[in-house]
Amino acid sequence: MLLVTPGPTELHDRVIAAMSRQVISHRGPELRKLYASLVEKFKSLLKTEGHVFVLACSATGGIECAVSNIIDKGDKVLSPVFGVFSERFAEAAKFYGAEVTYLNLKPKSAPSPEAIKRALDERVYDVMLLVYNETSTGTACRQFREIVRACKERGILVAVDAVSAAGGLPIDIDGWGIDVCVIGSQKCYAGPPGLSIITVSEEAWHKIRRSRRPFYFDLIKYRKYYEENRETPFTPAVNLMYGMEEALNIVLEYGAEGWVRRHMDFADCIYDALEKANVSLFAEKEYRSPTVISISLPSGVTDSEVLEELRVGYGVVAAGGMGSMKGSLIRVANMGNLSVEKTVKAYDAILNVLSSRVDGIDPRVVGTLEERLRKMGYR
Amino acid sequence: MLLVTPGPTELHDRVIAAMSRQVISHRGPELRKLYASLVEKFKSLLKTEGHVFVLACSATGGIECAVSNIIDKGDKVLSPVFGVFSERFAEAAKFYGAEVTYLNLKPKSAPSPEAIKRALDERVYDVMLLVYNETSTGTACRQFREIVRACKERGILVAVDAVSAAGGLPIDIDGWGIDVCVIGSQKCYAGPPGLSIITVSEEAWHKIRRSRRPFYFDLIKYRKYYEENRETPFTPAVNLMYGMEEALNIVLEYGAEGWVRRHMDFADCIYDALEKANVSLFAEKEYRSPTVISISLPSGVTDSEVLEELRVGYGVVAAGGMGSMKGSLIRVANMGNLSVEKTVKAYDAILNVLSSRVDGIDPRVVGTLEERLRKMGYR
Repeated sequence: MLLVTPGPTELHDRVIAAMSRQVISHRGPELRKLYASLVEKFKSLLKTEGHVFVLACSATGGIECAVSNIIDKGDKVLSPVFGVFSERFAEAAKFYGAEVTYLNLKPKSAPSPEAIKRALDERVYDVMLLVYNETSTGTACRQFREIVRACKERGILVAVDAVSAAGGLPIDIDGWGIDVCVIGSQKCYAGPPGLSIITVSEEAWHKIRRSRRPFYFDLIKYRKYYEENRETPFTPAVNLMYGMEEALNIVLEYGAEGWVRRHMDFADCIYDALEKANVSLFAEKEYRSPTVISISLPSGVTDSEVLEELRVGYGVVAAGGMGSMKGSLIRVANMGNLSVEKTVKAYDAILNVLSSRVDGIDPRVVGTLEERLRKMGYR
Repeated sequence: MLLVTPGPTELHDRVIAAMSRQVISHRGPELRKLYASLVEKFKSLLKTEGHVFVLACSATGGIECAVSNIIDKGDKVLSPVFGVFSERFAEAAKFYGAEVTYLNLKPKSAPSPEAIKRALDERVYDVMLLVYNETSTGTACRQFREIVRACKERGILVAVDAVSAAGGLPIDIDGWGIDVCVIGSQKCYAGPPGLSIITVSEEAWHKIRRSRRPFYFDLIKYRKYYEENRETPFTPAVNLMYGMEEALNIVLEYGAEGWVRRHMDFADCIYDALEKANVSLFAEKEYRSPTVISISLPSGVTDSEVLEELRVGYGVVAAGGMGSMKGSLIRVANMGNLSVEKTVKAYDAILNVLSSRVDGIDPRVVGTLEERLRKMGYR
C-alpha cells in the first residue's frame, strides 16, 4: 500500500528502526539527551531561539495547548476561517473565553494580507489565530509572512497552526515574529503520529504567565522541567521521540531549505500536470497548498467510491473531504519522504480512476510529470 | 540496563516488533480493526461492557480528560490526598470548577473504607476522585472495592486513577460500579508510553452530557467517532497502538487473572525479603502497593547517589521520590513483564548498594527470594 493521506505520511525505514528500541526511564540521562536533541533540531528547522516543547499528543492537543496558554478570558481574537482546522482553532479559543471575530473566507481560498489588514483596521485585537495551511481543503496562506507582519505591526500576538505547513512551506519563527507555532510530527517532517511540537516567543510568555490552563498543557510546567532537567513534566512517548529524532536527522542531512524546496517543486509539477490532465482542482490558483492537493469530484461521483477503487485497484491510500467538503473532494498528500516513483504511482492511479468516471481526463500526463521531476534532478 | 522505574516498564520484544510497522491511514479499515481490537481487549481485562477509549496522551492527559468531562462547575468533590497523583487529581478537578474537599492522609497510607465513610457521612458529594495505587509513594487502597461500594450506595459518581494499578491489582469496572477509570499504557500491561485509556459508565454519560470540556478531551466526540466508524476524532498514535495491542495479547495469553496474581505474588515475596533484609519500607504494611515498592532512605543518604550507583555499578534503573518525598525514597517497579531473573538482579543490586550505606542490611536474602519465587512456579 502507498500511503498518501495528508498525515500520517509513510515512515522512512530508518524512522521505523529508530522507534524499535527498548524504552528508557523518562527521568534519566538518555531521555534528557534525546529530548534536548529533538528540541535543538526543531529550533534549527523552524528558525527560533525561543522555547520549543514536544508534547505527547496529536496536533489538536498542541492547538489546545497553544490556545489555553495564550488566551485570557475576554481577549479579542481574530480568526480567519476557511476550513475545518481554522474553525477548530477558533472554537478552542472560544472555549477558553475569547471573544472571537470570525473572518469567514471561501473554503477554496485562504487569508490574504488585504483581507486581514481590512479586518485589523476595523477593530483592536489581542490575538490572531492563523492557519498557515488548511489540511482539510488544501489551501495555503501563500502570503503568510506579510499577514504576520501586519499583525505584529499592530502589536497583536500571533498564534499559528503550521501543522501541515512546517517542512513543506518556508517558515522563520523568529524572523517573521510568530509568537506561538504548533506543528505535528506526522506531516512534512514524516515522523510517527502522536507528537505535537509547540514554539513560544518571549512576548508570548508574558501573556502565558497570566492565563489559566489545563494541567496537561501547562507550558509553564514544560518550561520549568526543560530548563531544570531537559525533561517533560509528564511521561513522554519515548519511542515516538526516537522516531521523530531520526526523521529530523533525515531532513537535516537532506538540508532544511532543500527539503522545503522539494515539496514546493513537486507540488508545482503535480499541479501543472493535473491542470494539463483536465482535473478539477479545488483550491483557487493563488491559494493552492504545496502539501495537500485537493481534487474536486463532479456531482454523482463520491469520494468513497474513488478512494475505494484507489485502495483496492491500485494500492493507493488517499483521503476524502472533511466538514462541509465531505464527500466531494479527494485529498492527496505531498509530504515527507517524497519520491518521483511514489508520486507517479499515486497520480497514475488517481488519473486512471478519475478518467473512468469523469469526461475529458487524460491520464497520460503522468509521463510528463515524471520526466519533469527527473529533469529537475529529483529521484 | 534493567529498567525498573514505576513506568515506563521494559517492553517485550514482541511489543517492539509490533510497533515497528509502517504507519497506516487513521481513517481506513486497518486502523478501525486495530482500534476495535484494542478496545475489546481492554474491556475484557478491565471487565466492562461500558465504553473504552484510547487517547493519544500520557496518563495525566487521561486524568484531565476524566475530570473535565465529569466535573460541572460547583460540583462537590471528595479527594483523599496521599501523594503527588492524588493531589494532581484534585487540582485538576478544581481547575474545572469543583468545590474540592481534601481528605489529607499520611503519605505512608492510603484511603481506608472507615476514613472514607466518615467523610461521606459529614457532607453530600457529587463525585469521588480515588487513586487506586499511588505511584509517587508506593501505597495502595487495598480495600478499594469497599470504598467504591460506599460511594455508590450514596449515589456518588466514582472516578478512579488506576494508572499503576490496572493489571497489577484486581479490578472489575462494572462489577464494582466504577464510573470513570483512567489507566496508562506503560505500567502493568507493559505497553509503550504515550497512550491513556479511559472507561466510561452509563451513569457517567449523564453527567458528561452537561459538562464543558477541552476539545482534545471531549469524550462525546470520542464516543461518536467510535460508534460511527471505530475511529478516533483526532490522529491516533498508530505505532503505539500496534505495540499496545501486542502487549495485551501477551497478557491475555498468560491469562488476565494470572497476570494480576503474578504481580501480587512477586510483591509478597519481595516485601518479605526486604523485611528480612532489614530494609526500611516506606508504606505502612496494610497499604503496601504490589506494583511500586518504596524504600525509605536514612537521613544522610540521598536517592540520587543510590540511583546513580545502581545505574553505573549494576545497570539497574530505578526511580527516586516525588513531591514531599523527593530525595528520601527509592521506588522500584513490580510491573509488567516480571521475571525471577530480573527481580533477583534488581534486588541484589539494591540490597548491595543499601548495605554499603545503611547498617544492618543483609543482601543475602536475595537467594531466599529467588528460591521462593521459583518454588511458586515462576520463572
